[in-house]
Amino acid sequence: MTVTYYQLAILGNVRALENLAHLLDKGAEYARANKIEESALLEARLFPDMFNFARQVRMVCDMSRLAVSWLTGKETPKFADDEKSFADLKTRIANSIAWLKTFGEADFKDSPTREVRLPWAPDKAYRGEVFLLQHAIPNIYFHLTTAYDLLRHNGVPIGKADYLGQIG
Amino acid sequence: MTVTYYQLAILGNVRALENLAHLLDKGAEYARANKIEESALLEARLFPDMFNFARQVRMVCDMSRLAVSWLTGKETPKFADDEKSFADLKTRIANSIAWLKTFGEADFKDSPTREVRLPWAPDKAYRGEVFLLQHAIPNIYFHLTTAYDLLRHNGVPIGKADYLGQIG
Repeated sequence: MTVTYYQLAILGNVRALENLAHLLDKGAEYARANKIEESALLEARLFPDMFNFARQVRMVCDMSRLAVSWLTGKETPKFADDEKSFADLKTRIANSIAWLKTFGEADFKDSPTREVRLPWAPDKAYRGEVFLLQHAIPNIYFHLTTAYDLLRHNGVPIGKADYLGQIG
Repeated sequence: MTVTYYQLAILGNVRALENLAHLLDKGAEYARANKIEESALLEARLFPDMFNFARQVRMVCDMSRLAVSWLTGKETPKFADDEKSFADLKTRIANSIAWLKTFGEADFKDSPTREVRLPWAPDKAYRGEVFLLQHAIPNIYFHLTTAYDLLRHNGVPIGKADYLGQIG
């Protein structure tokens, strides 16, 4: 009755990113079919001081990799924040997935006791486990869901099944 | 380098519900301060065929309990869907937390291999583990985040820290 860090942080994050890529396909298709400029969706926000759609997508990508980087001590590549299209964002997702897939179960052997420090709050140290369960996982789903909500709010015909992906 | 089902499904869900209760406090305070009828927020949607805010809150409550019920075989109480205020919704949250807190680690001993069938797709059986990681957890964060997004979209002054709660 346990699951591994690898399952949560690698398989779980890859799954979230694959589902996000599928949502982007739906968004791109909707823009094409309705002659909507992609930028209108990429720059959409739910409130003026919230991140726009493109940044929500970047956050899923970056939090997925940073969480693994901080849990394992392995440095993650940085990507330029210059995506201008759904295709560009899908490249960021694909590159993030490719990096995550280089990890195995053994890479997480020190993770539970590792001290994780967030760059924006360097005076606080979290145990790996606390970071994974209370910060990383909720954060990734936060940005994934908000990306979904932004597409949905703008009329893209998607449903819960598109967010969850094929189960099994 | 493992975490238990209890940590994920009980501690994780209780945490999600406590953070949701905090978001509701912020919503209620905003309604009071701005003389907004609570129903205007409770009935808010991001798109006409999406669930409204009250139903997003109910979904977090119910998925939190149903996930545990399906993983353990213990029946969960049902609540009437008749909440008319933030206070009513907070009662549903409190009742859900109270029920979750009756569980211990040992209640999940058969969960990994248990066959989970979703009432709306009874012909498919999922292993407990697949259900927990691919369905239950993403679903709970989906409705929690959408509840957050609905408040934020309607001007409630909340931020990521309100969604994540105190970490540690």
